[in-house]
Amino acid sequence: MDADPALADALGVPPDDLESLLEQFQHETFEGQRYRHLADARHGIERGTAIVAGGVVRGFPSIPRTLVLDPGVPGHFDGRLTIEEKRNGYNVRIARIDGDILGFTRSGYLCPYTTATVRELLDSGAFFEEHPDLMLCGELIGPENPYTPHEYPDVESARIEVFDVRHRETGTALSVPRRRKLCETYDLPQVPDFGEYDPATAPEAVRSVIADLDRERKEGVVMQSIDGTRQLKYTTSATHRADLEHAFSLPFDYGRDFVFPRIVREAFQAVELDHSKGESRQRARELGESILLPAIETIRAVERSETVGEEHTVRADPDVIEALLSHLRNQGITIEIERDEREADQRVVTFVKVAQATRDNARDYLEGKLIDE
Amino acid sequence: MDADPALADALGVPPDDLESLLEQFQHETFEGQRYRHLADARHGIERGTAIVAGGVVRGFPSIPRTLVLDPGVPGHFDGRLTIEEKRNGYNVRIARIDGDILGFTRSGYLCPYTTATVRELLDSGAFFEEHPDLMLCGELIGPENPYTPHEYPDVESARIEVFDVRHRETGTALSVPRRRKLCETYDLPQVPDFGEYDPATAPEAVRSVIADLDRERKEGVVMQSIDGTRQLKYTTSATHRADLEHAFSLPFDYGRDFVFPRIVREAFQAVELDHSKGESRQRARELGESILLPAIETIRAVERSETVGEEHTVRADPDVIEALLSHLRNQGITIEIERDEREADQRVVTFVKVAQATRDNARDYLEGKLIDE
Repeated sequence: MDADPALADALGVPPDDLESLLEQFQHETFEGQRYRHLADARHGIERGTAIVAGGVVRGFPSIPRTLVLDPGVPGHFDGRLTIEEKRNGYNVRIARIDGDILGFTRSGYLCPYTTATVRELLDSGAFFEEHPDLMLCGELIGPENPYTPHEYPDVESARIEVFDVRHRETGTALSVPRRRKLCETYDLPQVPDFGEYDPATAPEAVRSVIADLDRERKEGVVMQSIDGTRQLKYTTSATHRADLEHAFSLPFDYGRDFVFPRIVREAFQAVELDHSKGESRQRARELGESILLPAIETIRAVERSETVGEEHTVRADPDVIEALLSHLRNQGITIEIERDEREADQRVVTFVKVAQATRDNARDYLEGKLIDE
Repeated sequence: MDADPALADALGVPPDDLESLLEQFQHETFEGQRYRHLADARHGIERGTAIVAGGVVRGFPSIPRTLVLDPGVPGHFDGRLTIEEKRNGYNVRIARIDGDILGFTRSGYLCPYTTATVRELLDSGAFFEEHPDLMLCGELIGPENPYTPHEYPDVESARIEVFDVRHRETGTALSVPRRRKLCETYDLPQVPDFGEYDPATAPEAVRSVIADLDRERKEGVVMQSIDGTRQLKYTTSATHRADLEHAFSLPFDYGRDFVFPRIVREAFQAVELDHSKGESRQRARELGESILLPAIETIRAVERSETVGEEHTVRADPDVIEALLSHLRNQGITIEIERDEREADQRVVTFVKVAQATRDNARDYLEGKLIDE
């Protein structure tokens, strides 16, 4: 397969470069079939690109972020754009290859849980029957989620919402109207839509949408040019704080990488959106509380010898749950099962991904380990 | 000189290792004489070690930090210890070589300003006449300071306070009583002393001292075993906040490196010292204010095209000021002179070390530069 000119063509690389590119892919097995995925962007190929049975599933591109709405938004778009909600879950790509509907995580991993959930929640058979060369890109949201659990008032367990339809091999996005029409035709849930704007009026529109989303503790918005080619994201203060609360509940696992970028986002947002010094002071205090209080709570939990980590609940066929837990353990994650129940033919498991760096560092420092500076 | 067995002996390395060690030293010139210094620890030799006219001036060792007083302090000391104030200035080593009294910065740089200040402020001639093999280790504090300016109520311009006397070549510290006796005999100012304690009672003593220092916005304490061999530091919340305020007034220059360690110090200090959840919440809010408000202020200053950077005032002979400014410029620092005056035979200059990363990044993001994530 490595000398396959069709594969080189599908990946969009010169045939001579194919071998060195393929060496960067990781090999995995799913449902008895070998596949490969690219865990980091290489040779201009997006992270998360996968090759299954010779078919290419292009990685989802990273969406740039602006720190200021004005001039960030008009600077990025030269025509009309749509504003849609950025949902807080994990990015899945759904494709059909050799008749199988498959669910890929952002890094291109064929996740058994994601695939099972996709097959259960989305009736995508008719869509792929007529559009085998496309893939659905969506967010898997809800509280029962092995990667990014988040409560939405109207999502009891899990839901997938489509935010992009792309050509599977090239990754090229369909236009916004075409994507929406397809989703309507095939009854596929879509992310909430806040309308279409000119670049000049979009900053004010986003400002207003962001104020509402912030109050509802939602993540933010993604803007997209009507032809689908350009995207831009902007997030709420509530999300920056929630990210920090999560990161600093496990400070030695996530704190260092999370903290600086979110402070920067808050600082620019304050400069652009705050109406008074009092508002900025309040923002600063809430930032401080989001950072320090979870860290204090976790250090105290370690002091009491409690398990610290991320709790997740998943609900699926017992085989799927077993495959998911194996996958997580194979990645070196220590799993502690907290609850394990049957509901009808499904297994519902609540587990903790143990935060080892936080547990070990907090314990060591509490025992008087010194920092050599 | 490179094959000098006496030099290898003074540095405490096997003669065969001398050459490769010496390759790590940087060459500089001071008062027409070449010297070398080690900018990073190598081969077990402390950062800041310098060689001047064949004489070795050992680097000042890094002092370990504890995040908790109990069991951090009793775990580190097996006998009585002294508690002294950690002053907030910069570390200088003072030695006499070939009859010249010289002032070295932490990195072993023979700073013209430091040397001139040392010669002016300390009457150390008699000390070195009788103890040529020793060096004085002290903190250069006060508002007129090219590196770490800090206000002390009783310091008008600058002062040097001794906290250690060490053998110049080996770096071995004298015992605390011997050091204090020497300082008294030769009338050398010393850092404030908070008494001597057993390891078991020291945490409570430090706790009380730290509460006072925190109220006075002072930096913290250094504990030292009576024989001089072991040291340990612990700092106030006021200092963590002041560090963050400074770092986030220039977020893209200092924020990233500063923020995480100080959050960790605050979290462990809260776990150990706070008496209530309300106290921790107040600590968290002040932390947030120390981080976000200076960043907002600086981004607004960049928006108004104002210079952002660290302001310093120095006072010395005109030649010394010229040499200091040349040195800073040679290090790639952009200097803007804000005031330049003569007072008697001294030149008093206030300058800003321009924070280029903060200026450039803030400007770019304000103009809509995107972050590709």
